[in-house]
Amino acid sequence: MTSFTFRRPVTISWGDCDPAGIVFNPRFFHMFDTSTWMLFEAALGLKAPEINPSYGILGIALVDVKANFVKPAKFGDTVEIATRVSEFRRSSFDVEHKLTVNGELAVEGQETRVWAVRRTDDPDKIRAGEIPAEVIAKFG
Amino acid sequence: MTSFTFRRPVTISWGDCDPAGIVFNPRFFHMFDTSTWMLFEAALGLKAPEINPSYGILGIALVDVKANFVKPAKFGDTVEIATRVSEFRRSSFDVEHKLTVNGELAVEGQETRVWAVRRTDDPDKIRAGEIPAEVIAKFG
Amino acid sequence: MTSFTFRRPVTISWGDCDPAGIVFNPRFFHMFDTSTWMLFEAALGLKAPEINPSYGILGIALVDVKANFVKPAKFGDTVEIATRVSEFRRSSFDVEHKLTVNGELAVEGQETRVWAVRRTDDPDKIRAGEIPAEVIAKFG
Amino acid sequence: MTSFTFRRPVTISWGDCDPAGIVFNPRFFHMFDTSTWMLFEAALGLKAPEINPSYGILGIALVDVKANFVKPAKFGDTVEIATRVSEFRRSSFDVEHKLTVNGELAVEGQETRVWAVRRTDDPDKIRAGEIPAEVIAKFG
Repeated sequence: MTSFTFRRPVTISWGDCDPAGIVFNPRFFHMFDTSTWMLFEAALGLKAPEINPSYGILGIALVDVKANFVKPAKFGDTVEIATRVSEFRRSSFDVEHKLTVNGELAVEGQETRVWAVRRTDDPDKIRAGEIPAEVIAKFG
Repeated sequence: MTSFTFRRPVTISWGDCDPAGIVFNPRFFHMFDTSTWMLFEAALGLKAPEINPSYGILGIALVDVKANFVKPAKFGDTVEIATRVSEFRRSSFDVEHKLTVNGELAVEGQETRVWAVRRTDDPDKIRAGEIPAEVIAKFG
Repeated sequence: MTSFTFRRPVTISWGDCDPAGIVFNPRFFHMFDTSTWMLFEAALGLKAPEINPSYGILGIALVDVKANFVKPAKFGDTVEIATRVSEFRRSSFDVEHKLTVNGELAVEGQETRVWAVRRTDDPDKIRAGEIPAEVIAKFG
Repeated sequence: MTSFTFRRPVTISWGDCDPAGIVFNPRFFHMFDTSTWMLFEAALGLKAPEINPSYGILGIALVDVKANFVKPAKFGDTVEIATRVSEFRRSSFDVEHKLTVNGELAVEGQETRVWAVRRTDDPDKIRAGEIPAEVIAKFG
């Protein structure tokens, strides 16, 4: 478990919501993706577009994502999304997102991502590479 | 397990894709949501907007969703999404989505939804109601 | 022309961008819609969901929108959106959005909206109502 | 004016709609973009991802877009979008979209796009190139 947590407020917009007046579930996955980028920016001290070239990777590719909807978030709510890497493994890691409305948990998300590098035998393909120790160290 | 499966082709549009040229993950959840509505339309013989009023429910509310990304889908691909209810329980059920590209599995999704009805003691709140046997029968 | 202008920074997310690496045009219209709500919140001193009930309207319905793309905005750019009502008429008004990247104009948008009220003869239909003078005054 | 028109049905999904139960305006621009790609596929006899490489262009870049909302489209409606190039000029052209609900005009859209090629003096920049006569001929 890492302790480095990135928190940001998000105000739910009209266009995030469906005819029931609550956030349409895919929008949460967009928010989570953005929060993961922002977590990496904050931990690595780089702007998002510099992360891949700086580490010679193709990206931190999503292999698995899930969310659990506890309470709805609705138009005009200002929610907080708290994001951290819950586990680093050799070439993959888990990112955990907790979205709260007025301090109460509304949505829990979890992503599994791999440190994606180009295959030397076939540069059009990707493989999971080893995450540098220095990267992991920056998440404390 | 139910045998009734709804299949539809979806052509990946330019705007579904991210700078890596592949579908941005939230778009899959929009596709899955739409496929669940279409599965219910087909099984119940009703147009989507008639489903809730016909059964006196507030909706089939999503409580949990996940996806596993096996292969990317990219701009111009025509994928197939096959959707079925994998399990009905007393007041909730699981929907399984298999998205294939050229016959190969690309994304697997699973939603858990509840049969949401209005609470009699507090009409602003919802509770999970019992799914009518006739509904389950239609998924045969 | 009104002088009250609402400005906000927006950081372009990965999911806002298309395979060319630039913002996919529909995302700008979502940003513009959100900025219009935020302009009205700021001018009227109300939270967005309170605006319609406070004035007894159904909404400020969009009848016309356009955008002109001068320069692209790309992943990681922090843009500024400056929004103001450029003209109030009896029952409609124009909203102008200027999106700049590093101080240079990238996108210009314009919305025409009507002050939408319920028709007394047919409550399912809307009509354009007269915009209260006090509302216009708040945009000074 | 060209006579070649591409028509397609689109069923409005739950996630296309906002809390007012009608299509959120940015979704129309996604539909229009997709229809423009499909019009070019049909006219040129190519799959969308082959269009740019086949003609050695960077794309048919959007410079201007507008829409006029005449009637709402709502969840479950099956609309028709009819798309054609209304005018070809030397290096730019206009695309017109008419979206109808039950045969009645609901949204009119217009895009202006340029035939975008790489600048020889600065390959990172684009310029408007001359549209080949054979391309224009295919829109008859």
